Amino acid sequence: MSGTRSALSRLGLDTGKKARLTRILFEYGLGNGTAMFLPYDQGLEHGPRDFFANPPASDPRYVVKLAQEGGFNGIVVQIGLAEKFYWDYAGEIPLVLKLNGKTDIPSDAEALSPLNATVEDAVRLGADAVGYTLYVGTPAQAVDFEQYRRVRQDAARLGMPLIVWAYPRGAAIEAKGGRDSFYAVDYAARTASELGADVVKVNFPHPERTTAVKEPYERDFTSQQAIDAVVRSANRTLVLVSGGSKAGDEAMLDKARQSMAAGATGLIFGRNVWQRPHDESLRFVDSLRKILSEYPSEVS
Amino acid sequence: MSGTRSALSRLGLDTGKKARLTRILFEYGLGNGTAMFLPYDQGLEHGPRDFFANPPASDPRYVVKLAQEGGFNGIVVQIGLAEKFYWDYAGEIPLVLKLNGKTDIPSDAEALSPLNATVEDAVRLGADAVGYTLYVGTPAQAVDFEQYRRVRQDAARLGMPLIVWAYPRGAAIEAKGGRDSFYAVDYAARTASELGADVVKVNFPHPERTTAVKEPYERDFTSQQAIDAVVRSANRTLVLVSGGSKAGDEAMLDKARQSMAAGATGLIFGRNVWQRPHDESLRFVDSLRKILSEYPSEVS
Amino acid sequence: MSGTRSALSRLGLDTGKKARLTRILFEYGLGNGTAMFLPYDQGLEHGPRDFFANPPASDPRYVVKLAQEGGFNGIVVQIGLAEKFYWDYAGEIPLVLKLNGKTDIPSDAEALSPLNATVEDAVRLGADAVGYTLYVGTPAQAVDFEQYRRVRQDAARLGMPLIVWAYPRGAAIEAKGGRDSFYAVDYAARTASELGADVVKVNFPHPERTTAVKEPYERDFTSQQAIDAVVRSANRTLVLVSGGSKAGDEAMLDKARQSMAAGATGLIFGRNVWQRPHDESLRFVDSLRKILSEYPSEVS
Amino acid sequence: MSGTRSALSRLGLDTGKKARLTRILFEYGLGNGTAMFLPYDQGLEHGPRDFFANPPASDPRYVVKLAQEGGFNGIVVQIGLAEKFYWDYAGEIPLVLKLNGKTDIPSDAEALSPLNATVEDAVRLGADAVGYTLYVGTPAQAVDFEQYRRVRQDAARLGMPLIVWAYPRGAAIEAKGGRDSFYAVDYAARTASELGADVVKVNFPHPERTTAVKEPYERDFTSQQAIDAVVRSANRTLVLVSGGSKAGDEAMLDKARQSMAAGATGLIFGRNVWQRPHDESLRFVDSLRKILSEYPSEVS
Amino acid sequence: MSGTRSALSRLGLDTGKKARLTRILFEYGLGNGTAMFLPYDQGLEHGPRDFFANPPASDPRYVVKLAQEGGFNGIVVQIGLAEKFYWDYAGEIPLVLKLNGKTDIPSDAEALSPLNATVEDAVRLGADAVGYTLYVGTPAQAVDFEQYRRVRQDAARLGMPLIVWAYPRGAAIEAKGGRDSFYAVDYAARTASELGADVVKVNFPHPERTTAVKEPYERDFTSQQAIDAVVRSANRTLVLVSGGSKAGDEAMLDKARQSMAAGATGLIFGRNVWQRPHDESLRFVDSLRKILSEYPSEVS
Repeated sequence: MSGTRSALSRLGLDTGKKARLTRILFEYGLGNGTAMFLPYDQGLEHGPRDFFANPPASDPRYVVKLAQEGGFNGIVVQIGLAEKFYWDYAGEIPLVLKLNGKTDIPSDAEALSPLNATVEDAVRLGADAVGYTLYVGTPAQAVDFEQYRRVRQDAARLGMPLIVWAYPRGAAIEAKGGRDSFYAVDYAARTASELGADVVKVNFPHPERTTAVKEPYERDFTSQQAIDAVVRSANRTLVLVSGGSKAGDEAMLDKARQSMAAGATGLIFGRNVWQRPHDESLRFVDSLRKILSEYPSEVS
Repeated sequence: MSGTRSALSRLGLDTGKKARLTRILFEYGLGNGTAMFLPYDQGLEHGPRDFFANPPASDPRYVVKLAQEGGFNGIVVQIGLAEKFYWDYAGEIPLVLKLNGKTDIPSDAEALSPLNATVEDAVRLGADAVGYTLYVGTPAQAVDFEQYRRVRQDAARLGMPLIVWAYPRGAAIEAKGGRDSFYAVDYAARTASELGADVVKVNFPHPERTTAVKEPYERDFTSQQAIDAVVRSANRTLVLVSGGSKAGDEAMLDKARQSMAAGATGLIFGRNVWQRPHDESLRFVDSLRKILSEYPSEVS
Repeated sequence: MSGTRSALSRLGLDTGKKARLTRILFEYGLGNGTAMFLPYDQGLEHGPRDFFANPPASDPRYVVKLAQEGGFNGIVVQIGLAEKFYWDYAGEIPLVLKLNGKTDIPSDAEALSPLNATVEDAVRLGADAVGYTLYVGTPAQAVDFEQYRRVRQDAARLGMPLIVWAYPRGAAIEAKGGRDSFYAVDYAARTASELGADVVKVNFPHPERTTAVKEPYERDFTSQQAIDAVVRSANRTLVLVSGGSKAGDEAMLDKARQSMAAGATGLIFGRNVWQRPHDESLRFVDSLRKILSEYPSEVS
Repeated sequence: MSGTRSALSRLGLDTGKKARLTRILFEYGLGNGTAMFLPYDQGLEHGPRDFFANPPASDPRYVVKLAQEGGFNGIVVQIGLAEKFYWDYAGEIPLVLKLNGKTDIPSDAEALSPLNATVEDAVRLGADAVGYTLYVGTPAQAVDFEQYRRVRQDAARLGMPLIVWAYPRGAAIEAKGGRDSFYAVDYAARTASELGADVVKVNFPHPERTTAVKEPYERDFTSQQAIDAVVRSANRTLVLVSGGSKAGDEAMLDKARQSMAAGATGLIFGRNVWQRPHDESLRFVDSLRKILSEYPSEVS
Repeated sequence: MSGTRSALSRLGLDTGKKARLTRILFEYGLGNGTAMFLPYDQGLEHGPRDFFANPPASDPRYVVKLAQEGGFNGIVVQIGLAEKFYWDYAGEIPLVLKLNGKTDIPSDAEALSPLNATVEDAVRLGADAVGYTLYVGTPAQAVDFEQYRRVRQDAARLGMPLIVWAYPRGAAIEAKGGRDSFYAVDYAARTASELGADVVKVNFPHPERTTAVKEPYERDFTSQQAIDAVVRSANRTLVLVSGGSKAGDEAMLDKARQSMAAGATGLIFGRNVWQRPHDESLRFVDSLRKILSEYPSEVS
């Protein structure tokens, strides 16, 4: 019972959001309504240690060029790299400005990702979408939702698509099955939809992680059933599935296939791409593109 | 002594303006750095009388489709049509939101084109540029400049390219050679540049209109010399040459050729296009495209 | 070549405007997508002289009750009557708050209708639409457009349908064929559409008034051809045709029939209704309702 | 009875204005407390006709390079050229952003120079001073003073030196001796000082123009006496003397010598410089520099 | 594998930031694109105890004169000293206004440096850059990032270069290798770059501190390898290396040499300079200048 992706014209989008998403999905990448984004905010989220596997990747220019060579639909960066590097490539590849972020040095028990930039910064830089990390389940939920609300309102006022990184996180999540359980990911996808995200980025759900999750999630589900359910929970919010830390290729490609079959719009793979040597990156991306090419949408 | 068009990277553009202009010039139309815009604000500027020559053109959908069929780089409309019609085509063809406009019913002696929309409206609608009509030489100059300044500042703040319709107009212009003289058009192009336009739309200059113009313009100049000078006066402001009212085809194509040879970026032809029957429009547009294809730029 | 009315879902309306217009068009009156409004701002626009023909009509309660008895889709009043009388009928009949208005004591040569209330007043009073008089062609055009722009932006921000009374007016109009010529009415309808009205109220055009109008309007047109063209010029802006000063019944009913055949959404008849004795009013309104009942729309 | 220039530390300047003026006067040009500015806003004020005498001067790059080669203390441009060209030379030569300007097409009888940019624009661009044209004596005085007041307040708040182009202008001035009379220039210098200019730019006074001037100016004065008086009228407002339209070299150098002897801080020569062929420009500038080198100040 | 410093024109700087940095780097100090700043905020950060080693250094005038004698490119002070002392030297040496600061009396476990001044204060005082201390890794990260964001946006709006003191600090850092580890300094440099600093001040990294650091930093690295990596992590953010507390001269000069070889732009040495007796200070500064003179850049 896999899913079908809705046309952009059926998502309740206003003109500006529809214009910008149409551009991302139909003018760049495969141009078939699917999307592959290259996130590059790990220098802030994890520190430069993520670049030791492939040192050239510490240079933002290397990564932007990789995104262009690989036919990505957009790159995702924090304000500093956007200000310093995007001018060189402006308009040649869509920019997703990540509006919040943090280091991983302090404890994540009360995770909160502070705003480093505004939707107006994104407009000024010619970005086609903004990203916001919402830590679903964090004890700092009240501050997070309040901060998110202002971003959502600015995005609505300026017609800017809002991509929510819906990350189950914090002490309470760890006590209720952990951040990757089907329960947690499904709840996160629905939370983003309930709070007005245009697109939601989720990690692939693990239905086998049933310890301490809510009762309905204790039953047996296949991976496909789980990701199907997550995409349904997101309803008219488009779904991007993330790659997470670098893992085995076949496992990654399986997740990608199942996600697209479920009705996801695309993939957002970072470390799995740029932590590889250059040519191997492109070969891996090519495998992902083949999968995406099998799930086209009509232009709205 | 014809000219060369500057690369976008040499124009002093900030990131957002560069992103949006790159998109217009390299992702749409011929994708070669030239541009052909279809203006459709005559319903306000002249009234529906302009549609009697080809009645289907009174329907905005007809004109947007024509722009798509003809491979235009963008359409130019007022806020009302943008709000009501652009959603259907959002992101499929760039939108230039014309921010001011007026009817031609009151006298033009003290011409002033009032603001009907803001740069923020353009952002919200996903437009890639805004247009402003500046009546160069009007006795209402102080009000016009003041109104323009706020538009320029908003455009700078939001990274939105600003296209200035630089129209010599008003009683003083009529007394000093008229609106189409080389003197008037040259001064208008320079004024737009001095006041910070990113792109300037001018009418093709008439060097033979020398009555009452300033002394240096009384000499003999060819059309090519005149348009060369106008493009130089605009310096780093990109130049679009307008078609004006419908005229003989060969005359129009000659103007187009001379403009592109002078270093103009493109053409903005409205009535000359959509006042013709549908297929004849496309044939005429095809002739224009052939000219543009001979003047490519490198992507910056 | 008469027209078809567009469904509300095809007009580019945002959610709030669609909700309020659906309420007006499908929950009140005939509930069939047509509309009949009772305007009652003549006490300001003309003074109490308009009530001498039927003195009870000087009492707002009389007129609101008449609107209810006659099955109108809404009443149109200025802020003062809305504040003092609408509470009694709040929610029982839709309120259209007229935001600007003026006396007819000073000359109309540079006509301008100043704001007396805001869109936020309309929200506070539970109104389902606002009205704005735009004097198309007035020498005060710059001030009028500027004032209108702020109303349009407030209406967009608050999801409030904006009905524009598009009235050709001022010395230049009088010199170019007068306010009721086909040329003037057609231009007015288009201007409202270009400037973003959701609904436009026009007077019925007089194609026989050809003195001093622009050339294409000098030809022979029937009334039906003229009103067809006006509705097309308004494109996705819904059209209401006004009754103007009290006239012969058959002439009025003919205009109504031609308007609805042309694709208008409805009628806005004031003096023609409430200047008659009570029961005669209702008989006349009944004739109008019969016409409207022949032009139903599907609920979107 | 020639004058002495005050030290910067005796002018009542706050920290930011003192910092920026010190930079202009002691870090650039001769570095001796004198100044030579190259104004380049004639493309707006007069139109491109001013460039016909030396066509390369229509290119802003030519003029900025000339300013660098000639050892000027700053260039003066409008916002458009500042935005498009100053980045290339940012910090290498001080920028004076001219905040207002106009075309010379409409009549000057009620001269008013509208604002095209703000002091905050100047800060953002790294300018070291702003320029404002005040039309002393214009019938539009009330609007001019009001507009000026806001500039002065912004300049004070942001520590930005304010250079006032004090130009006698308008019908009343023409009726009272004309714009260059000793009477008019003296009044203009004092007006700038009374209204809070940090620096005032004046034309060299003509004491021989006595027709219709106020009585005390009807007597016999030498040029030196006149310019001495003008500098005294400016008191703690530094004085720059302008070159005006291109004139005989010896006459120009005489004016320069008399101005510096009177206690002026420097010269602001535009057309007299860049309307000459390149090498002749530099030779002329060298003559000016020799004069300035004879009038050093101590660093405050 | 040491590095090369990028030209200012390749850093994605807007006009105002480029103007001010060009001034600092090419008009003051050695004028060769390197920089030596004299920080003097220790009276707040540590209290007057820092002045006991050389009592004259408690007088701001002593320190500013030392900066002038030593040929520094700028002094760094808090708002109070800027207000009281900079007027005397305004424009003679660039001012870096430190916008936040704190005493060292409370615990640093949740370190946060509150704002004491704004970017607008810096503009008003004629400063050429602002400084902000970001405590990378502090549990107060959310407040710190939020406070920083507003400074970054003001600096962008006003074209003011932003120097970030990127200091690893707080309980979590102490538990993960401490503030001077290569891991901590590298992460801090990258954080400043990701968040949009124009210049970052770091402490020299200690690769030998490997206890509890992230895995890739446990390997063997030389000092040169470590500082090379830090400069690469900062990418287009210019790097200043700090002297920290007074240490052995040869050790300090070695660090300076390695930093410049790595591609740093310069040094920021305070206590190491002004805690020495006057003449010894100047001798030490002279040794630093010799190093800087070996690493010139071209003016952009």
